[in-house]
Amino acid sequence: MKTLIQEKVEQAVAILQEKQIDLWLTFVRETSAVEDPVLPLIYGRTLTWHSALILTRRGERIAILGRLETDTARRLEAYDEVIGYDRSIREDLLRVLERLDPRQIAINTSVNDPVADGLTHGLYQTLTNYLAGTPFADRLVSAEAVIAALRSRKTPAEVERIRRAVATTEEIFRQTFDFLKPGLTEKQVADFMHEQIAARGLSPAWDWEHCPAVNAGPDSPVGHTAPTDIVLQPGHLVHFDFGVRQDDYCADIQRMVYLLRPGEREAPPEVQHGFETVVRAIQNAVQAMRPGRRGADIDAIARQTVVAAGYPEYPYGTGHGLGRAAHDGGTMLGPRWEKYGEAPLGLLEPGQVYTVEPGLAVPGYGYVGLEEDVLVTESGAEFLCPPQTTLILR
Amino acid sequence: MKTLIQEKVEQAVAILQEKQIDLWLTFVRETSAVEDPVLPLIYGRTLTWHSALILTRRGERIAILGRLETDTARRLEAYDEVIGYDRSIREDLLRVLERLDPRQIAINTSVNDPVADGLTHGLYQTLTNYLAGTPFADRLVSAEAVIAALRSRKTPAEVERIRRAVATTEEIFRQTFDFLKPGLTEKQVADFMHEQIAARGLSPAWDWEHCPAVNAGPDSPVGHTAPTDIVLQPGHLVHFDFGVRQDDYCADIQRMVYLLRPGEREAPPEVQHGFETVVRAIQNAVQAMRPGRRGADIDAIARQTVVAAGYPEYPYGTGHGLGRAAHDGGTMLGPRWEKYGEAPLGLLEPGQVYTVEPGLAVPGYGYVGLEEDVLVTESGAEFLCPPQTTLILR
Repeated sequence: MKTLIQEKVEQAVAILQEKQIDLWLTFVRETSAVEDPVLPLIYGRTLTWHSALILTRRGERIAILGRLETDTARRLEAYDEVIGYDRSIREDLLRVLERLDPRQIAINTSVNDPVADGLTHGLYQTLTNYLAGTPFADRLVSAEAVIAALRSRKTPAEVERIRRAVATTEEIFRQTFDFLKPGLTEKQVADFMHEQIAARGLSPAWDWEHCPAVNAGPDSPVGHTAPTDIVLQPGHLVHFDFGVRQDDYCADIQRMVYLLRPGEREAPPEVQHGFETVVRAIQNAVQAMRPGRRGADIDAIARQTVVAAGYPEYPYGTGHGLGRAAHDGGTMLGPRWEKYGEAPLGLLEPGQVYTVEPGLAVPGYGYVGLEEDVLVTESGAEFLCPPQTTLILR
Repeated sequence: MKTLIQEKVEQAVAILQEKQIDLWLTFVRETSAVEDPVLPLIYGRTLTWHSALILTRRGERIAILGRLETDTARRLEAYDEVIGYDRSIREDLLRVLERLDPRQIAINTSVNDPVADGLTHGLYQTLTNYLAGTPFADRLVSAEAVIAALRSRKTPAEVERIRRAVATTEEIFRQTFDFLKPGLTEKQVADFMHEQIAARGLSPAWDWEHCPAVNAGPDSPVGHTAPTDIVLQPGHLVHFDFGVRQDDYCADIQRMVYLLRPGEREAPPEVQHGFETVVRAIQNAVQAMRPGRRGADIDAIARQTVVAAGYPEYPYGTGHGLGRAAHDGGTMLGPRWEKYGEAPLGLLEPGQVYTVEPGLAVPGYGYVGLEEDVLVTESGAEFLCPPQTTLILR
């Protein structure tokens, strides 16, 4: 049975053929300090000295590494040729490039996509210095399209891992809703959820301090903020943004609870209206998702649903790629705002996993945000767990 | 009491004064994908959208961030001015630069020092694109010297954390030496050490798979390799390279055991000679360490001790900075080989912590490597725990 690394390296060769790029060069060093986000996909270990992972359209798979790390590289059985050096990578790298004579050398640099931008500027300078005076200096191109495809097209093994992370996240949500009651602070609720993560030997999908986000009532600061000492009270909307990382893959889910006031048997109409608007925005967006649609189009559908219902436009994108990272890069379900670069212009492809997460505020009650994890299939899209369609009442 | 972030931000302002650099700009985005290694020092949280952390020689401390993350930034109480934006950072960034009008803008790019090279090439392009046509385009300089000083000059609180990581590492070594016996495999020994890490709720100082390294006998592949199924046998040298990360700071220590053969009461003379040579190389190097000495000079002292005793020169540097990362960057106790760039040319300064780790092979018995963690003081250097000076026999 193939390892994930072997699967992804093979997939990369096929993507180079599809994108008509002769050679993809991942050039890194001291990855425990700065890790290129493609490294876990195609290598899965740290690398200390200047290292070159070379994959070609013709199927060559070559690793040039500091000699002390060649044994580890060979054991991966993902690279056919492993070359060790002692003092400088320059000679071996140039020799291999001369032998392969690629018309394009794709490198990990991208203005648009953070996960395709793992090459630091200092390493870029080192590389261009090595290539100066060779024919290769003019053949550098961005590996953005290669990386976006490799990272976003999940293999069945990858989708399975995301499904498991989603299932665990749902389970912790259920335990949390049972635990939830007025009088607890946001922090106490988050502590409870952290205990559930730790009890399973897992870690959160993003940084511990902000995962989960818990927002109770209208005064809680919504955004990428840590839970506060705000006390949960009847009449509060309680918003959660949470996911676990399990076997290196993430879930990212938002859920909503309303805390009933004495005498209430359901949420007030304005709360209900806000909640249903977000549910509808998600349903509209997911129904429109299928291979070939543009990320920005899906964003617009969710966004228009919210605006048409009388709420202000939310100041962030509707969704993002999900996988090894909670924010997995690639195409974005987002508006064409400058901060998103060209990410919203990408097309949906089978095997991609996205979050869909519109939101709005209900004045006096709190923030309403739901987030579902969705797999693009050959003909449409499917939820990776049942979406929340009724407000949880406590 | 100040937080570590507040301490380091203040220290950074003092370093800008010393280095006569007007402004230091840390420019990042989506740091959960690619983290600039300075971020844990001066911010300590993830950042999602284009973000600028600006510190100046005059003491201004300004953060420009996506609006959803401004609340988190304010709570750090490390930045006097926190500016939130919605669609693009460009305008706010240029406005702040115009107001401050710095003669130099130091950015996180370095050919030599990986931990000072957190700016990706894509972000560099975005930044220079923003600055094009302004007077600031020509004022970019490398923040290498600022970052090396900030990262390597440990505050007392940082040294205290490293001491605790070292103490825990020693404790796990002691437990491991009690557990050690012929018949175990390298993997079984490593599993035992992993259990000790997990039981304390800690993580290893570098990646799990290679921490600890355990090398038994002459056939074990030494380097950055994972423990193998090689069985520990009488007559083996057993080499360990190991450290824990505790409260975000690391230890990195190598220790040596010899497994006695039937009838032996001490190690054979050639083993003893190899071990004593490494001990002497460390002692010679550490005695020479004091502020103002060059990294390459300290390397040469250890290296010459090994070569003079009749062993080949080891193909790596004698030591590296230690702190938040096991390989903490900054000045290196290393030879002037191309792969190390200018890192061996730096000077030792009080408050720096280095590893000292020469090594050699004893044919037929295995690898001898010791590694000690050493603090540079005002007048010399001190070991952070008692160095190993006698071979452990089992």
